[in-house]
Amino acid sequence: MSRNLVVAIAALKETHRETIAAAAKQHGFTVRFFNSDQEALPALADAEIVFGQSAFLAQHAPRLRWLCTPSAGVDQFLAPGLFASPDAVLTNSSGAYGTTIAEHIVMVTLEMMRRQADYNGIVDRRAWKRDLPIRSIRNSRITLLGTGDIGQEAAIRLRAFSPASLTGVNRSGRNPRDLFDRIVTQDFLDAVLPETDLLILSLPGTPETAGLMDARRLALLPRDAFLVNVGRGSAIDQAALEQLLRQGQLAGAALDVFEQEPLDPAASLWECPRLLITPHVAGNMTLDYTVNRIVAQFLEDLDRYCAGQPLLRRISWQRGY
Amino acid sequence: MSRNLVVAIAALKETHRETIAAAAKQHGFTVRFFNSDQEALPALADAEIVFGQSAFLAQHAPRLRWLCTPSAGVDQFLAPGLFASPDAVLTNSSGAYGTTIAEHIVMVTLEMMRRQADYNGIVDRRAWKRDLPIRSIRNSRITLLGTGDIGQEAAIRLRAFSPASLTGVNRSGRNPRDLFDRIVTQDFLDAVLPETDLLILSLPGTPETAGLMDARRLALLPRDAFLVNVGRGSAIDQAALEQLLRQGQLAGAALDVFEQEPLDPAASLWECPRLLITPHVAGNMTLDYTVNRIVAQFLEDLDRYCAGQPLLRRISWQRGY
Repeated sequence: MSRNLVVAIAALKETHRETIAAAAKQHGFTVRFFNSDQEALPALADAEIVFGQSAFLAQHAPRLRWLCTPSAGVDQFLAPGLFASPDAVLTNSSGAYGTTIAEHIVMVTLEMMRRQADYNGIVDRRAWKRDLPIRSIRNSRITLLGTGDIGQEAAIRLRAFSPASLTGVNRSGRNPRDLFDRIVTQDFLDAVLPETDLLILSLPGTPETAGLMDARRLALLPRDAFLVNVGRGSAIDQAALEQLLRQGQLAGAALDVFEQEPLDPAASLWECPRLLITPHVAGNMTLDYTVNRIVAQFLEDLDRYCAGQPLLRRISWQRGY
Repeated sequence: MSRNLVVAIAALKETHRETIAAAAKQHGFTVRFFNSDQEALPALADAEIVFGQSAFLAQHAPRLRWLCTPSAGVDQFLAPGLFASPDAVLTNSSGAYGTTIAEHIVMVTLEMMRRQADYNGIVDRRAWKRDLPIRSIRNSRITLLGTGDIGQEAAIRLRAFSPASLTGVNRSGRNPRDLFDRIVTQDFLDAVLPETDLLILSLPGTPETAGLMDARRLALLPRDAFLVNVGRGSAIDQAALEQLLRQGQLAGAALDVFEQEPLDPAASLWECPRLLITPHVAGNMTLDYTVNRIVAQFLEDLDRYCAGQPLLRRISWQRGY
């Protein structure tokens, strides 16, 4: 009986497909490529491995032994009983998005600090105003809530801007690659927030992170602090954040993720002052480097799978990341 | 006879004035502060030192021995015969702007590479589009034309984004603080341009730099290259650049400086595609850190002036920087 690999990722280029096909053949797999989940449906019946993004794939692959998602986030896979094949292993593509999301973080931070929305408006009117007070990453106290791939890549880049400090907040208390000036566990989050000029959230969407930045914690930030969220919208009480921004109790926020996506066209958030909205673009497969890494990491784990070794990016069902 | 120091910088805060006043007193100087050149005019008659920005001050201070400008650029002072006191020494505030201008460079680079103008338009329409192909500083070949304070501070920050290479172009061939992967002199500029993904200009406005990036050299850049200019508008043939951008022969440009400023409201450049315009804001005195440095550097040179030592940021009339 043939062993089947189903790949359902529209963003792959021809070169990626060729590389995957060659590796699969070497391992004795038959590989089929699809540009949508629906197209892939008939092939899921006897798929042993699926390389694809949606819960739909997990729900319709009864013989599945391994699903690798090209995303970093796996929240859509965590509902109990979702997998048609309950013993399947799930891996993600953490490690592929740090570069692009870290660049997004630096970009939106500087756009907020340097009043770029105001200057865009001035330029739209063909005016010439130059004296808006601006801020700098230099000497800013930065707190990174989440110190995984994204938090680490952000720390590497932010360090070069000479911040006053880089504080990482995580569960383990460990300082990955010594990239942070200090690490505190989430128990100390309340103590860190009042001493934060820039708060960066890159948390996964899990029951534990849901509502972590509630109204009380948001209010602990200084009035002149900035906030960036590139993780999951569920980590922040969005209504409380909107109120703080409208009341001028926060210098600015840049949200790439929201409690509900797409953001409702009728949502008042679209017109919230001091808010920079991007439509969940920080970590898409729109950068060649990202897609190259996703494919390389999948092939690395494919080798390990075929050799009976533990997969490198296996998700713990209990932790949810 | 009393020795007089005239300070004509509106951006100074009270704390800066107090610090300057204390130092001046210690050195036996009488200091007077003004918020405009016109206000300062009567005091210029017997000013020995002027700390201020405009050619007007140099033109109306017959007893002047030293003028320190809080700017980095000194082109407005270079016309022969401009100074009423021909033996006066000129210093600038180079070293104070690297931080803020480097942050501007990284910001506009990422805005161009990550299609932020397009996404701003999408968000303005409350739409939700996420799949625009983007680019990255990672693996980009970066050429910095100008390796002074600004080029160096930009190199420090860009290095953290893992570019393919950082090439500095300057007159001396020296590699300041070893920040660049290689340094070439301007003789080799034509050879470097075709291998450049991102060109950053931070050149002073001198006869030598005027028109350096003419139509021929601009056309040497690859079609998918980006260009950033934070030095002086005179370094680029603006009409040739506009044509390249309109024809899609260049991926994007971010101009903070122009051949004429303010940019004429009727200029076609305002509507040029692939162009990010900012109204000469990269290196203003709108960042506290910048003003603090300007004052500290002036006081450092004031000590040296009073001790009869050479000033640290003295401008060479011959080089023009």
